[in-house]
Amino acid sequence: MNLLVKGKYVISDKIIKDGAIAIEDNIIMDVGEERKIKRSVGRGYEVYGGEEYLVIPGLINSHTHISMTLLRGYADDYSLQDWLEKWIWPVEAKLRPEDIEAGAILGAVESISMGVTTVCSLYHYYPDRNEASGLLKVGMRGTIGTALFSWDKEKCIYNFRDALHRWHGKNNLIRIAIGPHAPYTVDPDLWIEAKELLDYANNKYADKGDIIMTTHILEDDKEPELVKEKFNVELPEGSVVRYLDKLGVLDNYMLAAHMIHLHRDDIEIVKKRGINIAHNPIANLKLGMGIAPVSRYIDRGINVSLGTDGPASNNTLDIFETMKIAALLQKAIDRDPTTLPAKKVFEMATINGAKALHYDNLGMIRKGYLADIVLIDLKKPHLKPIFDPYSHLVYSVRSLDVDTVIIDGKIVYEKGEFSTISYDDIYKKIDRIINRLMSA
Amino acid sequence: MNLLVKGKYVISDKIIKDGAIAIEDNIIMDVGEERKIKRSVGRGYEVYGGEEYLVIPGLINSHTHISMTLLRGYADDYSLQDWLEKWIWPVEAKLRPEDIEAGAILGAVESISMGVTTVCSLYHYYPDRNEASGLLKVGMRGTIGTALFSWDKEKCIYNFRDALHRWHGKNNLIRIAIGPHAPYTVDPDLWIEAKELLDYANNKYADKGDIIMTTHILEDDKEPELVKEKFNVELPEGSVVRYLDKLGVLDNYMLAAHMIHLHRDDIEIVKKRGINIAHNPIANLKLGMGIAPVSRYIDRGINVSLGTDGPASNNTLDIFETMKIAALLQKAIDRDPTTLPAKKVFEMATINGAKALHYDNLGMIRKGYLADIVLIDLKKPHLKPIFDPYSHLVYSVRSLDVDTVIIDGKIVYEKGEFSTISYDDIYKKIDRIINRLMSA
Repeated sequence: MNLLVKGKYVISDKIIKDGAIAIEDNIIMDVGEERKIKRSVGRGYEVYGGEEYLVIPGLINSHTHISMTLLRGYADDYSLQDWLEKWIWPVEAKLRPEDIEAGAILGAVESISMGVTTVCSLYHYYPDRNEASGLLKVGMRGTIGTALFSWDKEKCIYNFRDALHRWHGKNNLIRIAIGPHAPYTVDPDLWIEAKELLDYANNKYADKGDIIMTTHILEDDKEPELVKEKFNVELPEGSVVRYLDKLGVLDNYMLAAHMIHLHRDDIEIVKKRGINIAHNPIANLKLGMGIAPVSRYIDRGINVSLGTDGPASNNTLDIFETMKIAALLQKAIDRDPTTLPAKKVFEMATINGAKALHYDNLGMIRKGYLADIVLIDLKKPHLKPIFDPYSHLVYSVRSLDVDTVIIDGKIVYEKGEFSTISYDDIYKKIDRIINRLMSA
Repeated sequence: MNLLVKGKYVISDKIIKDGAIAIEDNIIMDVGEERKIKRSVGRGYEVYGGEEYLVIPGLINSHTHISMTLLRGYADDYSLQDWLEKWIWPVEAKLRPEDIEAGAILGAVESISMGVTTVCSLYHYYPDRNEASGLLKVGMRGTIGTALFSWDKEKCIYNFRDALHRWHGKNNLIRIAIGPHAPYTVDPDLWIEAKELLDYANNKYADKGDIIMTTHILEDDKEPELVKEKFNVELPEGSVVRYLDKLGVLDNYMLAAHMIHLHRDDIEIVKKRGINIAHNPIANLKLGMGIAPVSRYIDRGINVSLGTDGPASNNTLDIFETMKIAALLQKAIDRDPTTLPAKKVFEMATINGAKALHYDNLGMIRKGYLADIVLIDLKKPHLKPIFDPYSHLVYSVRSLDVDTVIIDGKIVYEKGEFSTISYDDIYKKIDRIINRLMSA
């Protein structure tokens, strides 16, 4: 089906007033002023949007554990260790493949209703029913990492190979990533093996889209100590980043979540190796981990994208909220309101995320790009008046202002309803799962 | 009209599961388990809510300049001085009474659609058409401060007296407050005069509800220097708080916005005098002013409520968002996820606000209290599953999940529509005003 999407403002390379987008199959064929686009499209285009809409590329959540929707609000306001050991892990031990899938369906439904069209998620993997199968049932784009831990090395490597074979590039929506969990849970040998697997996979599946490495680095300032204790290794100048660099695992395929506590000189290594950083300001605040100084990273030319982290430590998958908090925090820690202006924050949530996931045709409304597009209803009291669409997108738009969501050229969500799935079915399934998980 | 409001959870002194509230006129007659309440109410009760609703007291925005909706997003990411001098003030100079009223109507509509039922606002005052008249047209509760500045002393005092006579306690919804702007814009004599006026007014209007003093204190860490320079005064131990205390203006009638940069010993004075603090975390971040350490204030037993500040420096009137950011920030600066748990933050947005505004029958769902009640629709993907309603209220509920709003016993807002006002009328008016303000 061909679509013509119209907006009072269309956010492309620049802001197009009274703009339109022509979509054929899953590709943006043209974008520009409506009067010009209209001339070039023939019949058979279904029209969406209009003069009361702000049209943007779909948002990208570049770090989460999407199935953790199941544990949203299950245990808040605890310390990280209590939270994990007393609350989260005992319940996670009971999770079944169908739970992981259902959690991902719930997370995809939530994400899309808030304008997020692509997610990078890392969680437990099972062959048939998992986060990938969940996203596909809703019609969401995702890069699904399979986790690697030293304590279950062989199983983890098996899972990655299985996921790659079964899911990577089998359809337009799903890619697989390798997910060494963190420097304090992955030993040096496994890091090196993960990098070899990554290179092997990118070679073998060269025509199916890049495979990235997704991980957590320096969320906690105690991480250097933890790594040294756990694996009895030396950290050059006490730096976890230098240690990983020496292992040879740092390059542009790495998407590192958090990166809160970098040493001064680490920034140059991150820049030189082209590492991508997924900034998760909400979870970092909520768990008391600190505030990553991302305006410094961005000024240095490092690619920084946005993530929500898992919905159990957030407790949503709301990238609009994440944009606003990211902007506000940098102004506060820099004591400078001009830091990280709205347009730059919007790029973190779109094109920077696409770069981090190694898509070269995503995250912008541009000719030839994938048609992941979100329509925002401007007829809301909190969106009146409008002076600057970027300012609105970061500071005023509420995630639930999202009216219509197009993913890979398909209308997945429109005015509160999904074309792919029924709320009642998923809510009933979630209720059953929670009853089982919470029973002794 | 009598109302029976039902909820899966009703937030009263405690959480009532399968609860109900009986409302007669503007008063909560009873609250408890539905099966008990139902027995005590007769016919003629209109029923709202049901098993898919979370029912809470209306939220209280205890510091804003509500008519500044007109300048939402007009000038973002500038330094405070540029923002005021080059952008905000030149436009404000063109504002007419009907603009102030229209801005307040837009702000009230926005606020109510996000579950805020009471606002404390301070802005320009005109006799007939002003923030009070705007709120009344929508049906919102408000404490309206009239601003005092040294540079226009007589006019300001006249305005306060006029507002008091014309608006205070003339209906169920509106109270007037006196608003000395800040220590660096109000000279010592005017502070003393303001306090005398306040005492006089509270005496004269003793049966009409308390009149409070609303002001800004220590938003900027340069404030002590500014005060000294401007008015050639001594600050005992360099403290603005001690200076004001020496003037005799500090007591429980004071609601001080911001209070970011208190000296160590100031906290004891604030506690001793019973000053109320309105915490505005979003505007404080956005303007690069800093983060008020409110968990310390609360631990000391000081009453801290929440505000959005003006929508031009936020850029919304969203108290749900403010709750979440307030909770997150304290966890970050204390480096402790157990700081400021959800229930305490919810109190900041409700009962603490009521205390700050000197209402003794507002901010809780309790027998004999004013019926300002908000129904939240729980049938949303981001609200599944639900373990703890307080956690949901602070971390997961989006402001636009608000389904129905009751103010002073009246259904003002239901499923996106107002009973009192038409969106089209107000949007058209706002468009006209903006066109005029922005023309040369």
